[in-house]
Amino acid sequence: MSWNTFGRVFRFTTWGESHGPALGVVVDGCPPGIALSEEHIQPFLDARKPGQNRFTTQRREADEVRILSGVFDGRTTGTPISLMIENTDQRSKDYSEVAKAYRPGHADYTYDAKYGFRDYRGGGRSSARETAARVAAGAIARLVIPEVTITGWTEAIGPHSIDYANFDAEQTRSNPFFCPDAEAARAWEGVIDATRKAGSSLGATVACEARGVPAGWGAPIYAKLDSELAAAMMTINATKGVEIGDGFAAARLSGEENADTMQPGENGEIAFGANHSGGTAGGISTGQPVLTRVAFKPTSSILTPVDTITKEGEATQIQTKGRHDPCVGIRGVPVVEAMMALVLADQKLLHRAQMGER
Amino acid sequence: MSWNTFGRVFRFTTWGESHGPALGVVVDGCPPGIALSEEHIQPFLDARKPGQNRFTTQRREADEVRILSGVFDGRTTGTPISLMIENTDQRSKDYSEVAKAYRPGHADYTYDAKYGFRDYRGGGRSSARETAARVAAGAIARLVIPEVTITGWTEAIGPHSIDYANFDAEQTRSNPFFCPDAEAARAWEGVIDATRKAGSSLGATVACEARGVPAGWGAPIYAKLDSELAAAMMTINATKGVEIGDGFAAARLSGEENADTMQPGENGEIAFGANHSGGTAGGISTGQPVLTRVAFKPTSSILTPVDTITKEGEATQIQTKGRHDPCVGIRGVPVVEAMMALVLADQKLLHRAQMGER
Amino acid sequence: MSWNTFGRVFRFTTWGESHGPALGVVVDGCPPGIALSEEHIQPFLDARKPGQNRFTTQRREADEVRILSGVFDGRTTGTPISLMIENTDQRSKDYSEVAKAYRPGHADYTYDAKYGFRDYRGGGRSSARETAARVAAGAIARLVIPEVTITGWTEAIGPHSIDYANFDAEQTRSNPFFCPDAEAARAWEGVIDATRKAGSSLGATVACEARGVPAGWGAPIYAKLDSELAAAMMTINATKGVEIGDGFAAARLSGEENADTMQPGENGEIAFGANHSGGTAGGISTGQPVLTRVAFKPTSSILTPVDTITKEGEATQIQTKGRHDPCVGIRGVPVVEAMMALVLADQKLLHRAQMGER
Amino acid sequence: MSWNTFGRVFRFTTWGESHGPALGVVVDGCPPGIALSEEHIQPFLDARKPGQNRFTTQRREADEVRILSGVFDGRTTGTPISLMIENTDQRSKDYSEVAKAYRPGHADYTYDAKYGFRDYRGGGRSSARETAARVAAGAIARLVIPEVTITGWTEAIGPHSIDYANFDAEQTRSNPFFCPDAEAARAWEGVIDATRKAGSSLGATVACEARGVPAGWGAPIYAKLDSELAAAMMTINATKGVEIGDGFAAARLSGEENADTMQPGENGEIAFGANHSGGTAGGISTGQPVLTRVAFKPTSSILTPVDTITKEGEATQIQTKGRHDPCVGIRGVPVVEAMMALVLADQKLLHRAQMGER
Repeated sequence: MSWNTFGRVFRFTTWGESHGPALGVVVDGCPPGIALSEEHIQPFLDARKPGQNRFTTQRREADEVRILSGVFDGRTTGTPISLMIENTDQRSKDYSEVAKAYRPGHADYTYDAKYGFRDYRGGGRSSARETAARVAAGAIARLVIPEVTITGWTEAIGPHSIDYANFDAEQTRSNPFFCPDAEAARAWEGVIDATRKAGSSLGATVACEARGVPAGWGAPIYAKLDSELAAAMMTINATKGVEIGDGFAAARLSGEENADTMQPGENGEIAFGANHSGGTAGGISTGQPVLTRVAFKPTSSILTPVDTITKEGEATQIQTKGRHDPCVGIRGVPVVEAMMALVLADQKLLHRAQMGER
Repeated sequence: MSWNTFGRVFRFTTWGESHGPALGVVVDGCPPGIALSEEHIQPFLDARKPGQNRFTTQRREADEVRILSGVFDGRTTGTPISLMIENTDQRSKDYSEVAKAYRPGHADYTYDAKYGFRDYRGGGRSSARETAARVAAGAIARLVIPEVTITGWTEAIGPHSIDYANFDAEQTRSNPFFCPDAEAARAWEGVIDATRKAGSSLGATVACEARGVPAGWGAPIYAKLDSELAAAMMTINATKGVEIGDGFAAARLSGEENADTMQPGENGEIAFGANHSGGTAGGISTGQPVLTRVAFKPTSSILTPVDTITKEGEATQIQTKGRHDPCVGIRGVPVVEAMMALVLADQKLLHRAQMGER
Repeated sequence: MSWNTFGRVFRFTTWGESHGPALGVVVDGCPPGIALSEEHIQPFLDARKPGQNRFTTQRREADEVRILSGVFDGRTTGTPISLMIENTDQRSKDYSEVAKAYRPGHADYTYDAKYGFRDYRGGGRSSARETAARVAAGAIARLVIPEVTITGWTEAIGPHSIDYANFDAEQTRSNPFFCPDAEAARAWEGVIDATRKAGSSLGATVACEARGVPAGWGAPIYAKLDSELAAAMMTINATKGVEIGDGFAAARLSGEENADTMQPGENGEIAFGANHSGGTAGGISTGQPVLTRVAFKPTSSILTPVDTITKEGEATQIQTKGRHDPCVGIRGVPVVEAMMALVLADQKLLHRAQMGER
Repeated sequence: MSWNTFGRVFRFTTWGESHGPALGVVVDGCPPGIALSEEHIQPFLDARKPGQNRFTTQRREADEVRILSGVFDGRTTGTPISLMIENTDQRSKDYSEVAKAYRPGHADYTYDAKYGFRDYRGGGRSSARETAARVAAGAIARLVIPEVTITGWTEAIGPHSIDYANFDAEQTRSNPFFCPDAEAARAWEGVIDATRKAGSSLGATVACEARGVPAGWGAPIYAKLDSELAAAMMTINATKGVEIGDGFAAARLSGEENADTMQPGENGEIAFGANHSGGTAGGISTGQPVLTRVAFKPTSSILTPVDTITKEGEATQIQTKGRHDPCVGIRGVPVVEAMMALVLADQKLLHRAQMGER
């Protein structure tokens, strides 16, 4: 099937291929009266867009967003908001190789297996260019949850992790890696340069935190906050794992070690002793920061020739020469942030559907 | 919100509380003509049910399932299948402590924060007893995908992992831990005994594999197979992480290391060089085994007194004395299997909606 | 497909066959804290239940509802509410005739055409007994919209219409026809007696009004209030038409005749000059009474032998002897009311999802 | 709420305002491999588009559709199809009157009541221009159900009905009224001319028939074919009633009169004695033509001054001078056809999800 809509009451639907004329998103269910113009959205697209430095794909896209509906006199009207981004750098090239043979790890084979054929130009619908549409939608979602502050960062590229002792959230916008550790960021320059030169690629781990989420959001049982976030993150290209809070590390702990104790805090708030849970219990937010961690596999597009088969099933080798990110997880940071915002906006609205405005 | 339905075309809706008269599930969208009776479902419930040995909670429930609709002359009719399981061992006890104070890590606080009050008896709706309903639904899902074989197992309890060199799928049904490593299973007896005696608890990691999934299932982009599985697993009580294939390990690899090369295989099949991806590419099944791994946090219910607050926000301590699983992840194995089956059945039907019967 | 769930945020799922052990409904998304017991639901079931007088089917069902989940200490908890009604008068009879041949106008043939076989006992899932489940759900929906008063009535049976000059809402609960015109009700006794004696049946028109709906409910464009009501009404057995406000009569008017003029009213309210629109404009409620009208075809079950075919496609005749309503539309009144309540509760919650509590 | 998506597996989402830069639709779930270009869609838009003769609004729109995604090498790829139509004749005019006061019968008041403010230019989102998007989507839906032939026609404008003795389906494309009765069409010229000159408007009844629908489509109970069609039709601007088959006329019949008898027909088909039911039984198609009838109220925009109130609640009068259709139901014919196609395509796919390709 094709399923390009996400969300329950705050919903968005994306469309578009890597080398088609444009891509876009329709955001439905947005509350009215919110100040919105292209200027609210563009900075998030700019953070994600390719070709800004030597560490990402050299495809250059302006990624200029245009609002086509749902806004009047500078405010959202409550009707669907259509956003469009034109593709401008679909380099005309010879696609004969990728059209005929499958790049292992790519969606080439599975799209053919499912649909019988595929738009092979730049990966078609399976291209990470689709994430531009959700970053645009995520910018709107942020406006729906002004009480929440969302920050994402790269935690590791390949085996190279940050040192949390150096964590500085400000840093995440100061280097090309969304890296909160200035020292690590400097080291990563060499790592990525070497990776790119070798025609290789690296995986990455991205973390994202949302502060300001009140206690009570989340829809047990089959739309638990953990579940919605996991679903959201695992729709992003190249993701293979997701954790809430301590995630897999919690599986190695005892109940005592994992306890997020509670004590009376200031101003009637609760002082938690820890946040192993990542801000949820029973699928509902606790009021603590919501924390997720996402695993990105290394870009499958590498220069090293790898064994594969043609569409007809014959043995061959393929070598991916085109423009690509040596570490696709890096540009995943704005996408993870966007998905966090989109899930939380949806859950906020869903919560007040059942509960009213408490 | 309350959201107790899962699935897109093969859907199920669960209901019931830990200490209410019964719990159940309505399965909708099941194809007609499938032989179904309680005997097809009961074995899966028996595998999950508590009180069978000293390693799980001592609550004793027959967990006898009754089919109330959707079956005629021994076959599914295509109309909704209602299943009910009566609760029989809701031990009458004094709930005054848990009614007043929040058990850290439990849904006690968040249900109150969301709904204003809660059914505190045995955790109410947030109890893992709800998973009996999905195990029952999962038994039906398996009948919808006879081409698929699903096997789950415990990979680790706390820091104690199995040795994959000893892996024997048969073993998973021969010990109380769903442990595929006979040696590890013996060692775990002591680990769990010690944990239970200490009034402590342990986390666990559960893995699950589905063989026989043809290439082509999955609904890009917002119902990718990875995303549906992640969502499904993260609705299970106490889960905090999910991986498809190599998961977080893939994030530490290079593109060369992570490549699932393809070669012509026998009978027109594809011979993959590896299955780092866990059986999906671009969110669509590749034809390889679909593999997921799920992290369960340690049961929050421990005998050690922990700091907490009362409903009124005052400091207190709480000690959970009732019956509980020292390692809730163990009994998670049949639940993970059920969710795997439920997702795959839904995706099979969704696939043929768009594609027809190819 | 089988699709047994209705609603977007306030949702219900029904299950059960005419001659199975029970039928029921799961209501999900209900706000917490609402006082609820079987006593809130039973009166609505009693109004619908068969066998209460000589004008309806002689099947006698207690239609006793039991709440199985979602209520604690007499109040809704915000979790799914499961309701069950046991079937008690599934008269054992010889179904060989209806099993073999199709009753024209019934779902016999189409269920076979769709599913390959069917539960032919009493119509199986296609029986109007399913409406008991929604009447139960509707009783809960009413509690979600205490600001709204819903009244349904029979407007005509066959060609015999009420005289609106005699309209008295109180009357609708004083005669076996939900007839607001006492004089018509007396005349209808003879009409129905004659119909029953002739082994014939009659169609009916049912109207339903909801007062107290504030301006602003409804979800343009594809969940307009008109559309949701039309969908809801047309899921009821034997319905073939639905109108909002003047309906088809409006199609014969000019713009001047159809204008619902507006003037300043008392207490800041609006004084409308008419309500041709039936309380909606652009799919959103205007604050006027919401009015719908539903056409029920005559019961297909008649004593007169009619031409039909067997399952094997051979010519035969069929004569329906069993217990049936001579005018199924009459008992449709409580069902139409229930569906009105269910749609409005859903739209109220959906409205506040987007808009907050204004 | 705002709810701009329709369908369950074949889904579409529309966006756009009357006077925004463009409007469009995203069609998701379309099977792959279907030949599709703008040429397949444009004729249906041309049939609907305004300004083609003196009997409709004089707004002139090219209504040129552009496919932005989901098609490669001239065939659908199975991914979302984005269609866009630019608005070109948003006449700049003074909107001060309609911005301040509410046109009775229009969505002016209700949009304000719901959303707090509105895009008043040409009715904004509530404009019937939105139907262009669904006519475009409907053209794609037709390609999904090549076995089905859909024909709509105007049955009456105001009190002026066609004579079915003169019915000629060919005629519906030969006159500006989609009128199948050539004689009536001639008479209607005068009726509409007079109406337009008087600054008045008329309601209309539109009928639509789908031939070739096999027995078995429809999703009992809450997505019955009758219900889906009713929902679909009642989302169209200005609709106030819908019937399947005989509709309200059936309510006046006896069971004998309403019986659609069955006899063995040719080639193993069934020879029905009548089609009172309009091609459905129990919400599932019977194999007979599916017939629906839709009531359109008269355009609310009339020259006659009518009492209304300002946004501030003060008494005033309003007179609608702009361009408008004297009988909006006429141009409703292509829209009703499109909705028929969209519902049937969705039900076809939903059917094979559960049943496979039988």
